Amino acid sequence: MPVAVDWGTSRLRAYLLDEAGAVAASLEADKGLMQVPPGGYAAVLAEAIAPWREAAGDMPVLMSGMVGSRQGWVEVPYVGLPATLDDLAAGTVPVEAPGFADLAIVPGVAAGTDGAGWADVMRGEETEIFGVLEGLGRGDGVFVLPGSHAKWVRVEGGAITHFETFMTGEVFEALSKHTILSKMMPLGKASPAAFARGVAAAQGLAAPGELLTRLFSIRAETLFGRLDEADAADFLSGLLIGAEVLAGARAVREVVVVGAAGLAARYLTALEQLGIGAVNAPPHAAAAGLKLIAQRRARS
Amino acid sequence: MPVAVDWGTSRLRAYLLDEAGAVAASLEADKGLMQVPPGGYAAVLAEAIAPWREAAGDMPVLMSGMVGSRQGWVEVPYVGLPATLDDLAAGTVPVEAPGFADLAIVPGVAAGTDGAGWADVMRGEETEIFGVLEGLGRGDGVFVLPGSHAKWVRVEGGAITHFETFMTGEVFEALSKHTILSKMMPLGKASPAAFARGVAAAQGLAAPGELLTRLFSIRAETLFGRLDEADAADFLSGLLIGAEVLAGARAVREVVVVGAAGLAARYLTALEQLGIGAVNAPPHAAAAGLKLIAQRRARS
Repeated sequence: MPVAVDWGTSRLRAYLLDEAGAVAASLEADKGLMQVPPGGYAAVLAEAIAPWREAAGDMPVLMSGMVGSRQGWVEVPYVGLPATLDDLAAGTVPVEAPGFADLAIVPGVAAGTDGAGWADVMRGEETEIFGVLEGLGRGDGVFVLPGSHAKWVRVEGGAITHFETFMTGEVFEALSKHTILSKMMPLGKASPAAFARGVAAAQGLAAPGELLTRLFSIRAETLFGRLDEADAADFLSGLLIGAEVLAGARAVREVVVVGAAGLAARYLTALEQLGIGAVNAPPHAAAAGLKLIAQRRARS
Repeated sequence: MPVAVDWGTSRLRAYLLDEAGAVAASLEADKGLMQVPPGGYAAVLAEAIAPWREAAGDMPVLMSGMVGSRQGWVEVPYVGLPATLDDLAAGTVPVEAPGFADLAIVPGVAAGTDGAGWADVMRGEETEIFGVLEGLGRGDGVFVLPGSHAKWVRVEGGAITHFETFMTGEVFEALSKHTILSKMMPLGKASPAAFARGVAAAQGLAAPGELLTRLFSIRAETLFGRLDEADAADFLSGLLIGAEVLAGARAVREVVVVGAAGLAARYLTALEQLGIGAVNAPPHAAAAGLKLIAQRRARS
């Protein structure tokens, strides 16, 4: 029984897989990279998955996410575009650590490193994408993974061919906490109407820079009682997510939304309002993706 | 000899005007609205301009800026669009305060309050605009007043007919201090090349939401050594100001830049790169505008 680990900056998620590769058990801990002391990765991991190993002995562990970044355990070189499951399996790097007989980290994917277009990177999302593809029985599609740094990923013929990162979540946090808008934040109450108005405002933007003026509109509209201060955060959320969806989805008719319920729901709402079809991804995408990479590695 | 006061959120600027309305003396103090204790406006003002009054006795004082806002000394209702000098003179509100025989506050200007378009407001910039128009001998033009909340103002036939506020300066502060970009900030050194690259990136944005992905590019480009971390702040500044200028100037051939030297220089550079003509406004615009409003009030 192997263990799949999605290890990011703020959280560690581990999955115990059964013989068929299905998730038999899972756990989540506040043990992201930021919480690991120098040289402490092996100990943190051993402690996190100790219950499973006590029951079944040492098990192969395959990891994805920021654990493979320069700031992580071992820096694993990025794979370029187009990126297939075979590329991820081939780029996986073994890690030597006391107490682990078979431990490895999956590479992330980089775009634009050949000098064509802008550089972009992901670590962890590529693995989730392949898990979702298997879950949906597909080899093509456009995927969004909402978050502080939302990823929009295009897959064609089983390969990731294009992706872009939008700093939407982090921009929302920075603007809602550290500008004049902060006086009206955080969310007074959930207001679907204000969120929808923000999405509509994004649709009405004629130039990229108008995003900077529509932010000030939030303040001005409240001055004249045309927007309730308690609704300002939802308007801002709709404005930013709406602008992101319009730029990310482009001419696409359907988008697969991958991720946690709360934020994913906002994306589903925005997609519906903008007339773009949306599909919910199945859960445990990272576990499913790591299982597939483990299988490819075992075969080669 | 009257006194003109431009009283904003963070600073108080006062001008002593001679018989012809020229600036005979000026002073500036860290005595913005945020530094004034409750009920303390009269005392702060009296102390600031005390040297002039000791020499010449009580003098009429006309003020513009956030001092007329709901958070200021006395709330002065906004004038709507189109807004002329006569409208500002007619909307000026006297303030009764011990030790001042003739004290008044000029109104701000509001847009969109009739329900057409988005609400927007300014306080102080309208007065500067009329001062600049006199200084340049014009009655028409497009003006930008850079700042935390930059204003783009259109004047036709001596009236302000349209304006928009861009939160560019405050967004720069929030993003450079409170996101992953903060690790690369503040400015390592001034890099005109990185600023120019940011402006060019703004020109390349195909959709408003791409601004959110280009922000992440700053991080990704540094990962691959294609952007020096010390240049990241200049790139961000160019990206945001470039996007603002493209949205604010639209099809305009020439823009008048009003404001402090350092930030105005960035706007002049961006305008030149984008092929838009730029004119520097004469200094003491607020004093000149307040003189004109005082003259209209005296006549009526």
